[in-house]
Amino acid sequence: MSHYRIAQQLEFIVDVDKLKQVLRRTSPIGAERRENSAEHSWQVVLCALLLHEHANESVDLLRVVQMLAIHDTVEVDVGDTFHYDKHTQADLSARENAAAERIFALLPSDQHQLYLSLWREFEARETPEARYAAAIDRAIAFVMNFNNKGGTWQSHNLTASQILERNRHIAAGSVALWDWVTETVQQGLELGYINQR
Amino acid sequence: MSHYRIAQQLEFIVDVDKLKQVLRRTSPIGAERRENSAEHSWQVVLCALLLHEHANESVDLLRVVQMLAIHDTVEVDVGDTFHYDKHTQADLSARENAAAERIFALLPSDQHQLYLSLWREFEARETPEARYAAAIDRAIAFVMNFNNKGGTWQSHNLTASQILERNRHIAAGSVALWDWVTETVQQGLELGYINQR
Repeated sequence: MSHYRIAQQLEFIVDVDKLKQVLRRTSPIGAERRENSAEHSWQVVLCALLLHEHANESVDLLRVVQMLAIHDTVEVDVGDTFHYDKHTQADLSARENAAAERIFALLPSDQHQLYLSLWREFEARETPEARYAAAIDRAIAFVMNFNNKGGTWQSHNLTASQILERNRHIAAGSVALWDWVTETVQQGLELGYINQR
Repeated sequence: MSHYRIAQQLEFIVDVDKLKQVLRRTSPIGAERRENSAEHSWQVVLCALLLHEHANESVDLLRVVQMLAIHDTVEVDVGDTFHYDKHTQADLSARENAAAERIFALLPSDQHQLYLSLWREFEARETPEARYAAAIDRAIAFVMNFNNKGGTWQSHNLTASQILERNRHIAAGSVALWDWVTETVQQGLELGYINQR
């Protein structure tokens, strides 16, 4: 029984190993190559642990980590999509749901249900844990772009208001992080990381 | 105060972003390139969450995740070292300690102490959490090599007994995983992933 469960659990692990091949738009700091969703997933877990004190509400941190460890696994089927691009967003939700159904079904049934519901909880952003996890996911993308002197803000020629709009839901998870983001957007404008209009 | 702590916490995050540039000996499954320690860190966190039920002892899973999220961060200063190579192991412990002292000191002092002690706890393998975390760290390397039809077992021409010896401490964290490993070594021999002697 134990071996059968281990085999199922490892089948999932092996399947989502493909996340190492899914490229995001951002680059590791100072690197030419694009980063992948596995690297990003480690970074959001680490950030969630370290920035926990800044969550607006009391959160179950282990539950946050569980969400973040699997939050991008649907990308092994659907790939990464760029948040500023309206086209790739079309029917994305249906494709991501189908991916989640397939991927988490590799796990033993109790874990299938648990992780599928954690993924849906993360997507819905209606619980304190999901709001905080989503804030961390956005905040780290912001941190990467700032530390890459603009990164995708520059390559996609985004305005300060587009960046603020996209990151606004950080406030729902952490007002402290959101305050830091708004201040840092000002710095980004002064440093030329964000173009003036 | 909040912003000052956020700035310190993000300075740490930005520093250890370099883990994305530290290459391990293993490759992502089916890929030519070597994987990096950031990808690996995500994978061990995910494995620890999913395989929790197989730990020998009751463990605080959040503490395990905290350890695993930072277990390789010293590599941003010392690089990855190959466990089967005696040469690179010389004076490694002193260099890793110096790296840990530098890296975790970037954090606010309470987190500096916490994460430095978690890193030392992981290295010492004397608590249930550290034994389980170390078992996961070894088990995932084993899983990667098996799924790469031998991987570094082949490229370094390792024997079944060398592989078993290196992985033996998995048993201290999870007898169930260790049983699975010994069975899978037999399979590896039959499939030619491990060379017969």
